[in-house]
Parts: sequence; C-alpha cells; structure tokens
Amino acid sequence: MYGRGATDDKGPLIGWLNAVEAFQKAGIEIPVNLVFCFEGMEESGSVGLYELIQEEADKYFADVDCICISDNYWLGTKKPCLSYGLRGIVCYIITVTGPPADLHSGIFGGITYEPMTDLIYLLSSLVKSDGTILIPGIMDKVKPLTSEEEALYEGISISTEDIEHSLGSKTLVYDNIKCTLMHRWRYPSLSIHGIEGAYSSSGIKTVIPSKVLGKVSIRLVPDMDYDEVSVLVKKHLESVFATLGSKNVLTIESNHGAKAWLSSVKHWNYQAASKAVEKIYGVTPDFTREGGSIPVVLTMESCLKKNVLLLPMGRGDDGPHSVNEKLNRSNYIQGIKLFGTYLCELAVV
Amino acid sequence: MYGRGATDDKGPLIGWLNAVEAFQKAGIEIPVNLVFCFEGMEESGSVGLYELIQEEADKYFADVDCICISDNYWLGTKKPCLSYGLRGIVCYIITVTGPPADLHSGIFGGITYEPMTDLIYLLSSLVKSDGTILIPGIMDKVKPLTSEEEALYEGISISTEDIEHSLGSKTLVYDNIKCTLMHRWRYPSLSIHGIEGAYSSSGIKTVIPSKVLGKVSIRLVPDMDYDEVSVLVKKHLESVFATLGSKNVLTIESNHGAKAWLSSVKHWNYQAASKAVEKIYGVTPDFTREGGSIPVVLTMESCLKKNVLLLPMGRGDDGPHSVNEKLNRSNYIQGIKLFGTYLCELAVV
Repeated sequence: MYGRGATDDKGPLIGWLNAVEAFQKAGIEIPVNLVFCFEGMEESGSVGLYELIQEEADKYFADVDCICISDNYWLGTKKPCLSYGLRGIVCYIITVTGPPADLHSGIFGGITYEPMTDLIYLLSSLVKSDGTILIPGIMDKVKPLTSEEEALYEGISISTEDIEHSLGSKTLVYDNIKCTLMHRWRYPSLSIHGIEGAYSSSGIKTVIPSKVLGKVSIRLVPDMDYDEVSVLVKKHLESVFATLGSKNVLTIESNHGAKAWLSSVKHWNYQAASKAVEKIYGVTPDFTREGGSIPVVLTMESCLKKNVLLLPMGRGDDGPHSVNEKLNRSNYIQGIKLFGTYLCELAVV
Repeated sequence: MYGRGATDDKGPLIGWLNAVEAFQKAGIEIPVNLVFCFEGMEESGSVGLYELIQEEADKYFADVDCICISDNYWLGTKKPCLSYGLRGIVCYIITVTGPPADLHSGIFGGITYEPMTDLIYLLSSLVKSDGTILIPGIMDKVKPLTSEEEALYEGISISTEDIEHSLGSKTLVYDNIKCTLMHRWRYPSLSIHGIEGAYSSSGIKTVIPSKVLGKVSIRLVPDMDYDEVSVLVKKHLESVFATLGSKNVLTIESNHGAKAWLSSVKHWNYQAASKAVEKIYGVTPDFTREGGSIPVVLTMESCLKKNVLLLPMGRGDDGPHSVNEKLNRSNYIQGIKLFGTYLCELAVV
C-alpha cells in the first residue's frame, strides 16, 4: 500500500482500530483497559501535545500502567522487533542575509558578498562525506561503548545486504553490520536537508539570492544534551563565519528538539509484546534501538512515569518520509493480529 | 513601473514601438530603414534564435548596416551610458546521486553517504566569500590589464555609494569604485544559484535527499574560452570528489554558454547614439561595459558582420531578474525620445 504516511503513521494507527474492531466483531471482551492517544502532528513538532499529556497525566491518563507506541519499523524486511531506544534530534536553521532583494549575477556577481557562497561554506564545515561530524566538542558527551553493550549487537539478525536492500543502493559507509547499526543507533549524525531562498527548480536562473536558510538536523544520542549541543553548533558556525570576513549577516535558530531515549527490555510490557510476536510470527523478536526520534516517547515516559514500548508494524524498507512510502499488506494484517495478541498477553503477564 | 520584466525587457521593447508610433503620429518619415528582431526567450537560452539569425542573415537581415540592442541599463541612476562590452556566461549543473529515493534521516543518517553533504563540499570548493574563484587555472586566460585600459576606468561617473544604492546594502567586496567596476566588467565571477532536489520550503523536513543538483554559473571575460573553462571546472570537481571517498555518483553538465564581447566605441553607430544622448539628456554618455551576458549580441555580430551598440533605457537600480523589478517612468519616456533621436542621428552621421 503506497502513499505518503502509509507506514508512518496511518497504517499502524488504523491497525490499532482494526484490532479493537476485531475483538468487537468476534464478541470477545478486550482483556485490558485501553486509553488511546492519537497524534497527527509529530512531523511538525507536535504543537500542544506535551502540554496535553502533562495536563491529562492525572486525569485521562491516570490509570495507565504501561504505554505502547506503534511509530517505528522492523530493522530489516523479515523479522519483527521490539524497540527500546531512540536517538533524539535537534534542528538548526542557519540564515545568511545580504542585500534586501535578489540580484542579477551579471551585474553583481564578483563585487558583492553572496549569501549563498557563505552558507555553502558554513554547511561544508559541519560534516564530512563519511558522516563524521566536524563541530569541535560534539562527540565528547557521547556515552562510551562498553563491552556489555557491544555484545548486544552480535545477535541482531540483519545483514549489510538487508540494509542495502532497504536503502536501495550500495552507498553505505561501513562494511560491517555492527558498525552500521552503531552509527544508526548509538552515535550522532548530522544531515543537511536543504536550502530555502535559493533557486530550487529545474534548469538555471542566474540570480544571486539575497537571503538563504540552510536546514540542518543532528540526531542526538545518550548523553548528549540538547542545549550543550546548540551552544557548540552556534560557537562553531560563528567562528567559521568570522574567518570569511563577509559583510553578510549570520543568524542561527534551533528548534524541534527531542532527547535520546533508552528503556529496559526486562519490563513486563516488553515480555508481553515478545510473547505476542512469538505467537503471530513464530520467532523471538530482535530487541533493537531506532535511529529516528519520536518526541512523544519521552513525554509519555516523563509525564506518566510508566514503561514505554515501541511495537512496530512496518518493515525497514518502507521508505517513511520519502516518495512512494509503503506498507506491505502482510505487515498490516499480521500487525493487527499482533496488536490484539499483545493486549491478551498484557492481561496475563 | 513595477513587474517581472519591466526593465528586462518589456519596457525597452515597447519603447522602440512607441518611438516608431511617435514618428507616425507626428507625420514624420522615419529617416532610416528599420529591421526589427523581437526576442522573448533570452533568459531560457534563446532556443532557435541563433539558427534564425544565421538563416536570415542574407535575407531578412541582408540590408542591415548596424545593430542596436536595448537590453541593458545605466551604470548608476543619473547618467546615461552606451555599452561596448559584455561578460559571457557558462552554467553548470553539478549532480550527486545516491540512493534511488529520499531517506528518513533518523534511519539512514550516519550510515550512508549523503548526496547533499557531497554536493555542499563540492560547491564550497569553487569560490571564496570575497568572490575569488578557486578552480585551478581558471584565471590564466583572463586578458591582462593594460595601463591604457586602466585609464578608461578613471572617468566613469559612478561612486561606490551609487553601487551600494543599486545593491540596497553595504555588502560590496571592494572599497574603491575602480576595483568594483573591474570585477563587474573585466574579471570573471562565479555564483551558486541554488540546489534542486533538496528541501527548499520553510521549516524543516528531516529527509536525506537522494539526488541533488547544484546550479552554478561563471561570468566569462576576454579571453576565456567556454570549452577550456568547462574542462577546468570538470577536472577540479572530479578531483575534489575523488578525495571524498564517497560511493555516490557525480555528473557535471554545462549549458547556456555565451562568449564575452567587446566592441569599438569609435564606430559611427556609437557616435550617433552619443549625439542622441547629448540631445535628450544634455550630457555625454559614459562608455561602459556590462557584467551581464546577452548571447544575441555575439550572434548578431558574428552572423551579420556589423557593429553592435547597446543602448539602454533603464537604470542601474532596476533590479532585473529579481522581485519588484522596476522601470522609472522618466527613463521610459526619455528612452522613447532617445530611441527616436538616435534614428535621426544615424541618418546624418
């Protein structure tokens, strides 16, 4: 099933309603009490959701014993997983402002400081082609890798080829799967998403843009602090900009932050889900982390003070956020069964 | 009069028709024969125009003795000019291709070579904030400055403040006007116009673009050769890309080229125009060059083998190619008179 949001997150959301419907149609009473929270604004910063959960923590959410969120995906395409960790995120809008209007490059090219030239240089100072982040001090707060943690990566049933399949190309940075998983889950990454204000259509328009905004995000991991990272990013960009001697103006804005998150797989919430996976798919799930960020996970955990489980429906190659995002029909149908079975297992753990 | 194309080039075009209309309404026979060529596709590469002029050189254009094109502007805002030189242009589309679809930066950030990171680095290797072009060998073919040429710059009646007024900001690279004019007219410049394929709207979308196209142009000057420049650009970008060790794919496409152009101000065509300026504006015009490119100028000159004059209507602060492009009413009305008077002067030189 193809379509924007098919797997992130219309499919899983409807899947939960289908599971409830199935109990109803089968005339079976749902074995646990359910409190739903539907969220349709996650990709735009979930305005108001944090406040809502906080306000309703002792009211609507008062009797909640554990939390389940279906907003992630299997690691690969064959084996289900339960997820107990997420990277956080912080976004930056880096703005370089020059003249008040766009300019003809024939008339002003070569005689004025061009905002685009400055912004491109600033962006090039952030990250290397292989993903190494170049901002001084940014790696200092990354939790060191222990041998215990490293051992967790050995048993994950996914190969470099599986990740290449999800990716659709052979452009992975690391040859071995352990490195790849660690760089997805436990190390930060920096992506340059685009530039606002410059020419972005096909062909060429010989205009010097007057004001350009670079869009950058950093995926955060334990124990990076959102505010500390922002201080380092701003300090770095300002010092690089100062070396240019440009007469343009630099401003840096940060937003849409979420901390990284780590849960415990030993909690009964995870045990119930693990048993449900065994019943529906006939395998023990992988216990994984996710490279993405789901801000509401931390909000739920901190406001309700209860264990949070990530129970995915879709596959690792669903292409969330991209064109032709999809959800396999089998994942959708088995996912509905999984959700229902998880509710049954919760009642007996 | 505000509007896209007001000064480049609807105003001057209608002005020529108004001049003809004025002769007709005054019952005065136009003192020279006129052959018009209307062009509405210059900003998109003038598809077919070169072939048309070539084919019609001995037919429609057979009796032409000199050529006048009104597609440029005064240097400043007060004094008219005649232009005898233009920079050329060559454009590049630099494409970095990675995976077949856009990616979620949480899932693939840190583990795959990101096309945007590579492209940003490539673009940052082309030009410095102060406009210095960093491509090795590119300045070698720039015609050396002679003391005779340098002297021409002394008499031009424009100040740094005038240029800042046109620019609308104090972001000029050079403090003295001679340097500024030389970098507009007789030195090449490189501008980065934008990126296609990356996120370009407001806010942030945490997507890793799968394929991004950088749009770059270089303004050429005598004696830079279009093909030689392209060889240098491609060689430079390919060698920088090789240092990245990226698994993405780089392709470079060049198009929309025009050579630089220099005419002679001693020709009777320029003398006639100079006298017309004196009659309408009461001043001797500045003899200037232009930083922009008008490909048809070279086409006309090479196909018809006749002198070409650039006779502008608008001012240096008209903002061609930008939002709120304008043409002053006084320039429009005096321009119509100037065109008509130029035709009268042509008949008697």
